[in-house]
Amino acid sequence: MFVLFTDFGLEGPYIGQVKAALWQGAPDRPVIDLLSDAPPFDPRSGAYLLAAYAAAMPPGCLILGVVDPGVGGPRQALAVKAGGRWFLGPDNGLLAIAARRAGDARVWQIDWRGPGVSASFHGRDVFAPLAARLARGEALPGREVPADTMVGADWPADLDRIVYIDRFGNAMTGLRAAALGPGAVLEAGGRRLARADSFFQVPVGATFWYENANGLAEIAVNQGRADRVLGLGIGTQIRTVAATTGED
Amino acid sequence: MFVLFTDFGLEGPYIGQVKAALWQGAPDRPVIDLLSDAPPFDPRSGAYLLAAYAAAMPPGCLILGVVDPGVGGPRQALAVKAGGRWFLGPDNGLLAIAARRAGDARVWQIDWRGPGVSASFHGRDVFAPLAARLARGEALPGREVPADTMVGADWPADLDRIVYIDRFGNAMTGLRAAALGPGAVLEAGGRRLARADSFFQVPVGATFWYENANGLAEIAVNQGRADRVLGLGIGTQIRTVAATTGED
Amino acid sequence: MFVLFTDFGLEGPYIGQVKAALWQGAPDRPVIDLLSDAPPFDPRSGAYLLAAYAAAMPPGCLILGVVDPGVGGPRQALAVKAGGRWFLGPDNGLLAIAARRAGDARVWQIDWRGPGVSASFHGRDVFAPLAARLARGEALPGREVPADTMVGADWPADLDRIVYIDRFGNAMTGLRAAALGPGAVLEAGGRRLARADSFFQVPVGATFWYENANGLAEIAVNQGRADRVLGLGIGTQIRTVAATTGED
Repeated sequence: MFVLFTDFGLEGPYIGQVKAALWQGAPDRPVIDLLSDAPPFDPRSGAYLLAAYAAAMPPGCLILGVVDPGVGGPRQALAVKAGGRWFLGPDNGLLAIAARRAGDARVWQIDWRGPGVSASFHGRDVFAPLAARLARGEALPGREVPADTMVGADWPADLDRIVYIDRFGNAMTGLRAAALGPGAVLEAGGRRLARADSFFQVPVGATFWYENANGLAEIAVNQGRADRVLGLGIGTQIRTVAATTGED
Repeated sequence: MFVLFTDFGLEGPYIGQVKAALWQGAPDRPVIDLLSDAPPFDPRSGAYLLAAYAAAMPPGCLILGVVDPGVGGPRQALAVKAGGRWFLGPDNGLLAIAARRAGDARVWQIDWRGPGVSASFHGRDVFAPLAARLARGEALPGREVPADTMVGADWPADLDRIVYIDRFGNAMTGLRAAALGPGAVLEAGGRRLARADSFFQVPVGATFWYENANGLAEIAVNQGRADRVLGLGIGTQIRTVAATTGED
Repeated sequence: MFVLFTDFGLEGPYIGQVKAALWQGAPDRPVIDLLSDAPPFDPRSGAYLLAAYAAAMPPGCLILGVVDPGVGGPRQALAVKAGGRWFLGPDNGLLAIAARRAGDARVWQIDWRGPGVSASFHGRDVFAPLAARLARGEALPGREVPADTMVGADWPADLDRIVYIDRFGNAMTGLRAAALGPGAVLEAGGRRLARADSFFQVPVGATFWYENANGLAEIAVNQGRADRVLGLGIGTQIRTVAATTGED
């Protein structure tokens, strides 16, 4: 199975062209759009999202992670084998957190370019053909490098910032709830937020955080939009208050 | 075939995760996104939409209907066999109109929960694995209950409200055109609207209603946006004027 | 493979219903959404987009091109065989540029209508069943006509207007970069725009044009939105300045 994680947007001809390239290289493999609206041009936010969401994708899948503001420039292309899954994408940090968390990552720099590669669309012209090659069982056209040479290898284990805001205004952080613990209090938009297990535990209009279905700490308002209520956007910093501080 | 009818939105990682769960449970079955932007948190509007659109889905398909503001709370999960199709979703009315119209609905309450069920994402963790079980031909892990115990069993046959507004500003009502008859006049936004067979029958800028391609009465403006011209939103009430009243 | 090129929008139940119709007529064929947000009701802009993007779709594919403001009126339905691909859609110019550029186009007018055809949704009720018939190898239920009788047969080879604006604000023209040549200067929004090979060649905030990944001249701003900076919308005219004029 191929899995797409990109900032291409749902609109436009980009996702469809990647799928056509995958079908031409490896027909009849399913393709899943995991995320098409990753924060644009922002591989750092994307790295923590991808790490949280890739872990639930089927073993053996090939994940194309393409948030690639450096396309057409000198950035390298990578293939990463980590946790039983393949990741293909630019060497700009996007794949780094998923690779590190797996604990067994192997990394290849890819110098191969297919015929007629455009300057602006390596998702279609490099990463899709490369994924198809791997799916067909062909050898990887690159050279292995140490995993700690990846861009992002020195990024923090968790990111104390907002990394995604969904259609309901819920704001995902780059913090894993398990790393925070059940008593942790977050501070965002000038308010302290206690943890709840679900929307049912808090009154209508209350702000809180909870462990979302992929393990991230997510900030929400019961029947409201947390992004507007708290003034949150991609990149807004979240402060972790000592669990013993109590709540407002 | 699996059919998805949800309010998850096109954005975000939600639809992709449901598809991955379906593929893991029943590989190689096609999945169709019928509607991803059902009115959010609004199972009543969704019920009349789903009933209109499910009827055109292939016989034998498994429809996941997930508009689920009560997820994580005490609401039941249901499986419904109706009109030769399966429906899986929360017991909040969403499946009730489709079930009733089929005339042959059988309903099961599902107490089964898969491993690691999250509090907030039963589309992925309950309904998708359940659909995959049904697709594999396994027995249904629930107990049959009378169809008239479903939430929504007492809802009206048609709903005199706007239930969906499409990208062009056309406003679908929960009223079947066949139930209204050809001479019916609707009243919305302070105007009386006569029926037309197509956009070609009315002048540019004229407001009217017509039977849409799935049998619902839909309010439109030729080369304009009915939602803006008439001030319509999800839930706006529509008045049915006696067919003999004439038109403005 | 079926390829969908429409103005139906990503939202709503339209694309899903077309896919269900395709699956019912020709199960197990892949379907790719190439573009769902073609400029609405605008077959002329769509024609130049479709010609640029269809050329990269797999040989032998069946492309449903449905931008169809005349649905329900007297416009004809067409099947076109061109460049080894099939195109199905309304006779309103949408298919004309792709057909002409292929150089070998054959065109059929289709009078066939399936059972229960709606007045407003020929994508589902006419073009999808027709595509499925072709995919099954059945004879085409229409009569061949000269290619130059298509609507749009007299449209220009390239269109000096904006035909699409993507989520990043990049503005595609209907002009092929190869037809303009490397030294060409475009004028849009009161500014002269030189060509660059990539975003890396220009300073942040600079406006320029480049050959996009499908051969069209596309107007962009490095780390900005060209549509807003230059005041561009679908249909905005672009002036081609003699290549020797120099740049501002």
